[in-house]
Amino acid sequence: MIQQRPLYGRDDLRRLIEPRSIAVVGASPTEGSFGRRTLENLANFTGTVYGIHPKHSEILGRPTFSNLADLPEVPDCVIVCVGQHLAEPVIQEAARLGIGGAVVYASGYRETGDVDGEAAQLRLLDTARHGGLRLAGPNCIGLVNAQSKAAMNFMTDCGQMISGDAGSISLVSQSGALGYSLLQGVHRGMGFSKFLACGNSVDVDVADYVSYLAEDPDTSVIVCLLEGISDGRRFIEAILKAGRAGKPVIVYKAANGEASSKAALSHTGTLAGSAEAYRSAFRRAGAVLVEDFEALLEVATFFSRNPQGPNGAGVGIMATSGGAGVICADKAEENALPLPALDDATAAVLQDIVPGFGSMANPADLTAEVLKDISTFKTAVMSFCDDPSYGAVVVPLTFVHETTTGVRARYLAEVASETNTALAAVWMNEWLEGPGSRDLDSDASVTVFRSPSRCMWTIRRWMDWHARTDWSPLSGSTADAAVGNPAAGLLGAAASGATALTETAAKEIVARYGIKVPAEQVVQTPDEAVAAADAMGYPVVLKVVSPDILHKSEVGGVRVGLASADEVREALTTMSARMLSEAAHAQIVGYSVQQMAGEGPEILLGARFDPVFGPLVLLGSGGTWVEILKDVKVYLTPLDRPTALAAIREMTLVKVLEGARGHAPYDIDALADTIVAFSQLVRDLDGLATEIELNPVRITREHGPMAVDALIVLAPREHGSTPKTGGAAPVANHAEGTAEWANA
Amino acid sequence: MIQQRPLYGRDDLRRLIEPRSIAVVGASPTEGSFGRRTLENLANFTGTVYGIHPKHSEILGRPTFSNLADLPEVPDCVIVCVGQHLAEPVIQEAARLGIGGAVVYASGYRETGDVDGEAAQLRLLDTARHGGLRLAGPNCIGLVNAQSKAAMNFMTDCGQMISGDAGSISLVSQSGALGYSLLQGVHRGMGFSKFLACGNSVDVDVADYVSYLAEDPDTSVIVCLLEGISDGRRFIEAILKAGRAGKPVIVYKAANGEASSKAALSHTGTLAGSAEAYRSAFRRAGAVLVEDFEALLEVATFFSRNPQGPNGAGVGIMATSGGAGVICADKAEENALPLPALDDATAAVLQDIVPGFGSMANPADLTAEVLKDISTFKTAVMSFCDDPSYGAVVVPLTFVHETTTGVRARYLAEVASETNTALAAVWMNEWLEGPGSRDLDSDASVTVFRSPSRCMWTIRRWMDWHARTDWSPLSGSTADAAVGNPAAGLLGAAASGATALTETAAKEIVARYGIKVPAEQVVQTPDEAVAAADAMGYPVVLKVVSPDILHKSEVGGVRVGLASADEVREALTTMSARMLSEAAHAQIVGYSVQQMAGEGPEILLGARFDPVFGPLVLLGSGGTWVEILKDVKVYLTPLDRPTALAAIREMTLVKVLEGARGHAPYDIDALADTIVAFSQLVRDLDGLATEIELNPVRITREHGPMAVDALIVLAPREHGSTPKTGGAAPVANHAEGTAEWANA
Repeated sequence: MIQQRPLYGRDDLRRLIEPRSIAVVGASPTEGSFGRRTLENLANFTGTVYGIHPKHSEILGRPTFSNLADLPEVPDCVIVCVGQHLAEPVIQEAARLGIGGAVVYASGYRETGDVDGEAAQLRLLDTARHGGLRLAGPNCIGLVNAQSKAAMNFMTDCGQMISGDAGSISLVSQSGALGYSLLQGVHRGMGFSKFLACGNSVDVDVADYVSYLAEDPDTSVIVCLLEGISDGRRFIEAILKAGRAGKPVIVYKAANGEASSKAALSHTGTLAGSAEAYRSAFRRAGAVLVEDFEALLEVATFFSRNPQGPNGAGVGIMATSGGAGVICADKAEENALPLPALDDATAAVLQDIVPGFGSMANPADLTAEVLKDISTFKTAVMSFCDDPSYGAVVVPLTFVHETTTGVRARYLAEVASETNTALAAVWMNEWLEGPGSRDLDSDASVTVFRSPSRCMWTIRRWMDWHARTDWSPLSGSTADAAVGNPAAGLLGAAASGATALTETAAKEIVARYGIKVPAEQVVQTPDEAVAAADAMGYPVVLKVVSPDILHKSEVGGVRVGLASADEVREALTTMSARMLSEAAHAQIVGYSVQQMAGEGPEILLGARFDPVFGPLVLLGSGGTWVEILKDVKVYLTPLDRPTALAAIREMTLVKVLEGARGHAPYDIDALADTIVAFSQLVRDLDGLATEIELNPVRITREHGPMAVDALIVLAPREHGSTPKTGGAAPVANHAEGTAEWANA
Repeated sequence: MIQQRPLYGRDDLRRLIEPRSIAVVGASPTEGSFGRRTLENLANFTGTVYGIHPKHSEILGRPTFSNLADLPEVPDCVIVCVGQHLAEPVIQEAARLGIGGAVVYASGYRETGDVDGEAAQLRLLDTARHGGLRLAGPNCIGLVNAQSKAAMNFMTDCGQMISGDAGSISLVSQSGALGYSLLQGVHRGMGFSKFLACGNSVDVDVADYVSYLAEDPDTSVIVCLLEGISDGRRFIEAILKAGRAGKPVIVYKAANGEASSKAALSHTGTLAGSAEAYRSAFRRAGAVLVEDFEALLEVATFFSRNPQGPNGAGVGIMATSGGAGVICADKAEENALPLPALDDATAAVLQDIVPGFGSMANPADLTAEVLKDISTFKTAVMSFCDDPSYGAVVVPLTFVHETTTGVRARYLAEVASETNTALAAVWMNEWLEGPGSRDLDSDASVTVFRSPSRCMWTIRRWMDWHARTDWSPLSGSTADAAVGNPAAGLLGAAASGATALTETAAKEIVARYGIKVPAEQVVQTPDEAVAAADAMGYPVVLKVVSPDILHKSEVGGVRVGLASADEVREALTTMSARMLSEAAHAQIVGYSVQQMAGEGPEILLGARFDPVFGPLVLLGSGGTWVEILKDVKVYLTPLDRPTALAAIREMTLVKVLEGARGHAPYDIDALADTIVAFSQLVRDLDGLATEIELNPVRITREHGPMAVDALIVLAPREHGSTPKTGGAAPVANHAEGTAEWANA
């Protein structure tokens, strides 16, 4: 279900996330109770805390009242520590009193899967929306505001854990447990700004949190831990909003398994599972998608400690172990990071420091010599940071001792605070929290990675993120072409109860969008066929035309390369005889005589109607290679020309299109136009079709891109209403236009 | 340079690595000196320690003598703490006295790159070899034997660090610093058996260490940290020896960058850089190759704690957080690990423990309910381990506290000690050494991973490693066919000073190995060409034959699809005219009329003469696709039939060969035979050719695999002697037989 509610902003969520006063309903002196833990977690809160309890007038030193209505002020936020049945009247009263936010721990709602839970959740939503109360949860671990020391959750010791300095990384998590696991990085020295768990997201959801954080002055980087979202475009808008505020969003998406895409019915749908749709959406939104949970915090930390972006395009590696330098260089190369040589100034500094140092290479190996006078280490690092070709300097650390890494960590922090160059240490040691690591973890400028590959991967993404300039909203970025909806108009005429259009009818629609199709003529008799072929010029293709035959090749319904009138005549006679035996019940509209498209590379264009991201375009290598290369990628619609060109550049086939092995290039601009037109077709057929595929689109030097085959499968119609998407559709496998190896 | 020295075994290296008595030359009371640190590191050594110093009679409580000759016994091993100039006489005396091993710290040898250093190193080698003294180093950080507490190195505090329980993982490292960084895992609870640094490897090298550890009863898993090896086949033999002893070898290889393969001259050589050769060698040897340094220890730990191999093919995931379970399941799927459903017994146990637990899914989410009575956690884990479909059980841990993970770690250790199922915890928390982690790190049975993907990756490799049964030596596994060397014989006649053979001459050699080539006839005149074509049947191909023209297509020297006598006549006339203008200085042997090979997929077969691994075969998709797919892989020779079949199964193209989209399969057995024959050809031409390539080999239904083109570039000959490999060769780019899209 695509929701249309606008994103909540800071004004909407300020009382929930930045309360000045908090009431704890279900406050309790009982050890281990949620109420007591919540009060304990608010011990350092800079605002006012009230308890709500029927019998006590004070709990843990906090003034306690029987009811919310009895409080001396209307608090900004209420934390509801009671169970499901008691929570509902509390929320109703809170809304009535004008309380601005509520955190609801209770479970027993939609996650139960039963109707009572669902109904209770909808009542909560109704109360919150009508009362102007912003609700976190239910079934929610709670929130943390590390600036105000509001640990609004029931985790053991959270209040104490966040009592130190706050940082500028904020965490948004659909899984409370996993989000909290990131937050526990505090124990090794990390700092955070906000921790926002979603729970069941009845009111405030992950996109709202991102939207809030985009406006939060205490947040510089947003980490999102996702399992799934209901409205993909709204989430993309939130990421773009953060981008406009100069804040990177680092995302980890769980639940990418095949199981979730088994429902996909069409051939190409299987190739582009929903994990691919998410990937495409994150790319479009400019989110930094990490593939491993354990990478989230290091990636976010590097972004947060280097908000200025790179000053140079290269990376400098300064090692004191040759092996460590080589490993870091390997990983830089894997991530397409250039390793420029040291400039003269840097080289001179290093030769002063390490007399025997002969190699001006990058990576540099200063050897253990620098350890003899440890302060030279700082000089060497600073000279790297001053080198203008290095946007980032990486210093691998190997064996660790108080006397080596303990000292070097402090020098690294000093240099990082004095330079605009990004400085990262790589902790290549199995003593994960050994001497010096805490100084690096807690420093505000230098970043420590416990993985060389992750370090280089992050620097690559950081450079790319800062190179992006267009963060304009999705909604306004590419308006649909105002050309009406020719497809829908044609469908009314073409489709009379059939689920699949004939290739001829599908091509007629495709052609209306300006996509080239081969000349064709539908005939009934051998004489008509010969006349058509004579007019068209030989060789020609002959195909059976029937809405009931999706796999034409399998029943002998395709003949290619017919080079003479005799061959055409023979082909039609044979084909019509075979249809009688092999497709006896199919309605035969006629036989289509088609122009041969010529030789050239083939691509596939397909559609996917995604419940999260709406209509998508699939683009990849086509014909036989579709299954072998599996390089079909999905793209959000609408696709404009620059996006289409970028998509073409991502194809495995692009080298052929650009002219492989000295051959002339194909018309890539024309292909981009075809993709843009197809994107419009897909959007126009959203709700009307379940499957659209042009496979192959053959690209020839004579004609440019041409849809040699086309398939449109209609959605089932219900009493003339707009049909739903996602219904069952026949699985089509239609490479009829493609000879196995040589293309006709 | 390929060395032929046999591997050292335990008998050879016992006195070096398992000494009962050690002399420290350069023993010193001076704080921070190598001599003092070495003595300190031997504080807990179970054997005898002697100091050698010209003035002292006792240092740090150890009896000290002026010279090795003065010692009351001949020690097993000497640790040489003095500099390069003093080290040489020490080694000479040690050898003379019959000391069995020496560790040499001193630098100033080959690594300097100057002739004096090289000469000094060769003298060391000569002394060691003639004196029967096994030498570690020079330029070596030293060794550790954690069983005898012999920390024979100069690292700060090493002796104290290894004073606890030894483990069964041994480390071999070319980089002393990085190896030691792994060893420092001791600080978070890991245990080790041996740490063996190579230094300059003048005598004992990495292969010898692996060979020793294969025999060491205290070692169960061997970790190798490599930068490069000089004799690849010897290293493979060592890994296979470890395999026969039931010991996995876990390898990380640094220095995989493009820079190292820039020297590759031929087109395909570039595609298969030397990193690929290493990868191929490790695969052949059965080593477990990890792609990240930080993965080494976790991977080794899992192998060492689960030496029994899997009892079931699936993985069970028991989570107490839904999100954590989903992430682990994602990573299991990515690593092709099945997730079988719980069996009835397991499901019943879980339902007893968690009353509301309705989902019998794998991953299971027991929710935080199990924490209410923590002992049920143990029952639940045990029920997973008892489930016969699970070869491994994975328990993700999210937020950590003494009361949660602290307790659960101990329960996990208990279950692991009682079950034969492999049990792994995944530490999904940024408090890297938080409560419970030390119990897990130091336990002998359970393994903790700090990465879900690494956990699943490792389980996959562990299952695969235990499935391998053939660890027979490389040398004896596939004898060269005893058919003489037809290639060498033919070369004598064919090559008279030319660097490249004509295609015709190359095909003649190829055909001698039983590889099919198209019928061809070399002609001089149009009449002869027509006569040849008439006899052969149309259509035919016409190619110029010249040892001087490597790029025939570029000068108009190839015409395909000639369908009549007239076309053949016209083609030869035109072609000979063009040769006069475009290849005026080329020697034209004639024109080759060739049979058309028919349609079919194309592969590439190439050779690479590797200084580390000897002659290699390259196999991949051929023709135009060679550059697009880049799936060329290298294989060690000789390739036998099973290896060739396995190589075919790794090709991107295999789906086409097996019959894509309902088409009949091609003759894969015949292709395997072609590969085996080519492997023999490559071995026969080792030292005689610099480049051998069949591109494409086209596979048709009529003829099976057929070499449509062939190139052999000869090595420069020096006064009739056997030529060296690796010399410069013209770069050839020869897809003449292939039309750009449609294959002739």
